[in-house]
Amino acid sequence: MASIRLTGAFPPMITPFTEDGDVDYDAHVENMEKWNEDELGGYLVLGSNSETAYLNEAEKLRLVELTVRHARSGRIVIAGTGMESTRETIELTNKAADLGVQMALILTPFYYGGKMNDEALIAYFTRVADKCKIPVMIYNVTKFTHINISANAVKVLSRHENLIGMKDSSGDIPQLVNFKSVIPERWNLMVGTASAWFPALTLGVTAAIMALANCAPNECSRIQNLYLKGDQEGARELYERMFPVNAAVTGAFGIAGLKFAADLLGYRGGAVRSPLLPLKDGEKQKLTEILKTAGLV
Amino acid sequence: MASIRLTGAFPPMITPFTEDGDVDYDAHVENMEKWNEDELGGYLVLGSNSETAYLNEAEKLRLVELTVRHARSGRIVIAGTGMESTRETIELTNKAADLGVQMALILTPFYYGGKMNDEALIAYFTRVADKCKIPVMIYNVTKFTHINISANAVKVLSRHENLIGMKDSSGDIPQLVNFKSVIPERWNLMVGTASAWFPALTLGVTAAIMALANCAPNECSRIQNLYLKGDQEGARELYERMFPVNAAVTGAFGIAGLKFAADLLGYRGGAVRSPLLPLKDGEKQKLTEILKTAGLV
Amino acid sequence: MASIRLTGAFPPMITPFTEDGDVDYDAHVENMEKWNEDELGGYLVLGSNSETAYLNEAEKLRLVELTVRHARSGRIVIAGTGMESTRETIELTNKAADLGVQMALILTPFYYGGKMNDEALIAYFTRVADKCKIPVMIYNVTKFTHINISANAVKVLSRHENLIGMKDSSGDIPQLVNFKSVIPERWNLMVGTASAWFPALTLGVTAAIMALANCAPNECSRIQNLYLKGDQEGARELYERMFPVNAAVTGAFGIAGLKFAADLLGYRGGAVRSPLLPLKDGEKQKLTEILKTAGLV
Amino acid sequence: MASIRLTGAFPPMITPFTEDGDVDYDAHVENMEKWNEDELGGYLVLGSNSETAYLNEAEKLRLVELTVRHARSGRIVIAGTGMESTRETIELTNKAADLGVQMALILTPFYYGGKMNDEALIAYFTRVADKCKIPVMIYNVTKFTHINISANAVKVLSRHENLIGMKDSSGDIPQLVNFKSVIPERWNLMVGTASAWFPALTLGVTAAIMALANCAPNECSRIQNLYLKGDQEGARELYERMFPVNAAVTGAFGIAGLKFAADLLGYRGGAVRSPLLPLKDGEKQKLTEILKTAGLV
Repeated sequence: MASIRLTGAFPPMITPFTEDGDVDYDAHVENMEKWNEDELGGYLVLGSNSETAYLNEAEKLRLVELTVRHARSGRIVIAGTGMESTRETIELTNKAADLGVQMALILTPFYYGGKMNDEALIAYFTRVADKCKIPVMIYNVTKFTHINISANAVKVLSRHENLIGMKDSSGDIPQLVNFKSVIPERWNLMVGTASAWFPALTLGVTAAIMALANCAPNECSRIQNLYLKGDQEGARELYERMFPVNAAVTGAFGIAGLKFAADLLGYRGGAVRSPLLPLKDGEKQKLTEILKTAGLV
Repeated sequence: MASIRLTGAFPPMITPFTEDGDVDYDAHVENMEKWNEDELGGYLVLGSNSETAYLNEAEKLRLVELTVRHARSGRIVIAGTGMESTRETIELTNKAADLGVQMALILTPFYYGGKMNDEALIAYFTRVADKCKIPVMIYNVTKFTHINISANAVKVLSRHENLIGMKDSSGDIPQLVNFKSVIPERWNLMVGTASAWFPALTLGVTAAIMALANCAPNECSRIQNLYLKGDQEGARELYERMFPVNAAVTGAFGIAGLKFAADLLGYRGGAVRSPLLPLKDGEKQKLTEILKTAGLV
Repeated sequence: MASIRLTGAFPPMITPFTEDGDVDYDAHVENMEKWNEDELGGYLVLGSNSETAYLNEAEKLRLVELTVRHARSGRIVIAGTGMESTRETIELTNKAADLGVQMALILTPFYYGGKMNDEALIAYFTRVADKCKIPVMIYNVTKFTHINISANAVKVLSRHENLIGMKDSSGDIPQLVNFKSVIPERWNLMVGTASAWFPALTLGVTAAIMALANCAPNECSRIQNLYLKGDQEGARELYERMFPVNAAVTGAFGIAGLKFAADLLGYRGGAVRSPLLPLKDGEKQKLTEILKTAGLV
Repeated sequence: MASIRLTGAFPPMITPFTEDGDVDYDAHVENMEKWNEDELGGYLVLGSNSETAYLNEAEKLRLVELTVRHARSGRIVIAGTGMESTRETIELTNKAADLGVQMALILTPFYYGGKMNDEALIAYFTRVADKCKIPVMIYNVTKFTHINISANAVKVLSRHENLIGMKDSSGDIPQLVNFKSVIPERWNLMVGTASAWFPALTLGVTAAIMALANCAPNECSRIQNLYLKGDQEGARELYERMFPVNAAVTGAFGIAGLKFAADLLGYRGGAVRSPLLPLKDGEKQKLTEILKTAGLV
């Protein structure tokens, strides 16, 4: 039975684009080299913050390949290979597996959301887990999918040996407690936003995939380190200091804001792909101010 | 300036699959041959009811090609070629144009829905309309996208010469009146569900793309014919008789129900693609009953 | 069995307040005297637009009494006497009945909305209809209650002899068709917003309670008159002309806007009660402009 | 300036009814005598779980009076005196103050929810705080009101000397962190559900008003005690053990479930008032099972 214990902060890596809208693979490698020096648990390539919805298959696979090749030795690479159809999810996941990623994070299908009930989601994830060469995790991100997987479905799915965890991006802590109550010990229950990081730590969660880890990876890791060595006050203080930054780069300013923050903090953010819009000057000023207040700039 | 006046009922054509989940192109051609004999305004290939979210590009283009080749002479073929990214939408639309479709129906991008405000949607559709070789229409389908384009955005976009209309699938009649109040005369304001067909006719709408036209095309057309020749009572009676069928094949039973109804009514429905689930026996009985009550079976 | 056939436009009468926030009963009587000269089907006292949520029982009963006394002979007076608890609804309704109102419009209880399922609503309206001295109607207004009564519940309730109709304020025309399909002929299915008035007429609805009838009663009635005498084009044109006014006084500007419009059009609107806020000057200008464009001012 | 530091668990006290639906005041006093022996921070009379929406003014005031008279010496009594209108809220609060309650918890007005923006809520709570004889707190309970007060409004209001805190019943921990970041040190930020109790403690919250404290007061208090004396593991374990009980008595089974649990655990629960429905036998069995699993029965 697959057993992997994830720990630490994982960035859902931003995808740099040139002004023309092409993937800037060199910039991605530069980012990885810098993240390799940061404290991180591993990497997620092709997450929501990677603008994966805007990438074609060739771009996806090239990013996977580069990520695997440049990841610091010993760090896990997870790939977000969920598609809408079962067959395409399996195909893409296995291509990513062939390129060397260790795990896949699979989005709940959502376009025909009214039909994605427990029965459909259980059948879907079971089939995917059966047919994929690598362990898979469930990716629950209601903000984008308008689907919220139930604790009942999670309970059933958590018994599948090739399903080894889930990322819940809701930030809903009571829901996290509910999920925790139905899963086996071996399961990796990850939170998917820095807004839930400290509360999740106090509940025994050990890993998170969070946008903020793109631009403030060491702060994300330090919250956990402080907590684990018993300095709960320090952990909470740092979490609260980062909180407005996270709100800004995931909410008000979105991916364009996350990339702008990455640019300011020494990474290669670059342009967003259309139809996302770049930040306006006023937004850049506000975001810079938020980063200053948090002591990041 | 592009000027096309759409009239009549258009089926968002179901995509038949074999039990193995492959596209059954022969069955699609069979359907077209039957629809060619029915009264219809034209065809939509790659709509939501086509399970387009589950088709890869090769499958999409093959369906477009076959549809163009087999469409009855003089009937318009519209293709649903909206993707999440601006560049992919333009590329796919132009490939479809090269295969001979006359118009494209472009879904509002929605994954990063929180950022798809008026400004972003106006920029998106303007860029798409600028770069596409064929006229385009806006596809607003909140049920699937959780995006609802505003009347303000529609007003601005309706001034673009290569944007020639929109399909609003909400079934929201007051919203339809609102859209109507901001668009120019030349615009094609289509409804996207049979539940709004009769009310839309009374408001001057002349065309609809609706799931029900897959399995009951002549009834859909007859509602309009009766209305146009002044038999409003007859039109309303037929609309009300079809109403529960439409509710069943778009709501309770979804695409699997639509395909089952198509099978019963002489078309090739076939299997749905996973993760959609097939109807259960009890559901098939209920749906058969509904079709009987409506006088279709 | 109670049998009342409602026809025409009913204003959910605004409640004038003095600047101090007291009910201005004299202004209410003045309004009634003016409405008595207008073409209307009858009156609703204590509707949502009456700021009923802000009235105490003494104020409510005084308004009921004055309305009954001053209503033009032959015009029906309906009172909105729904409370959250079954016992209070029955008590208030019977007090209003003793004061002479002919019917009661009973809001779906909603505070504990998660528990107001079909079973609870059926039990509630059944008990209320059993115990009230006058016929009652269901008031479904999702915008305020976040409850939407199901067609199943309506079907069951429409068999109760003392339940004689419903007002659906959703403006959702397909839902209206759905309700229509489950009710007996004798039932009064009223729409609750002018945005649905013309479409509802084409579906056979004969009466409406709508905010707009406070300030433009004759226009509301004329839409119906034109429709009934076969001038559908004229009816639709007038409906479309009134549409933006209705959107303004029910949506953007709310009750404060409705009262401002009433003031401009010769009625006594007056202040809203706190916590509602008065219109700002800019809003007054915009609304005046809308009324001018519609030809009302 | 009013300065009260609230600590501990407060039950939003259930209101016992007889089978006829009358308030059972004796049973209320019995409950208070038992709660007086339990470990609690104080009492909330007229909360949502008190079925306050179903009580008339005389019942409310009688409950306030009895609560003040029977409360254990030194324990704070808070009354939920929010009404829809500003004037009625002030009047009822001052009547409760005259009866001896120390503080009032004021619900956000919500019927005309679309108009209850920051400006309206700030004006409302400012006026209420100005005119009430006792300190007031904001009650934010989106589940019932469909209103969610913004951090901006809270920031402004927290500067008012007679506004001394808020109860946020959302269970949304990131939102709680957000509120915490804008309020002054003196403010009482209370959570309103046991599902958020342990996470809130780790964030520095010191008091909660929670349904569960009606039937399991000592467990609620012990979570805090364990946490404060450094046994975080023990606190979390107890919180997680109580979690399903809380979910049952606030979600699935609602107030009827809470009262049934109270009955089982030695309090006087009794009937719910119509239109709430009593538990069915199957529900009673399930809930009993949940209480057993949690070790309460």
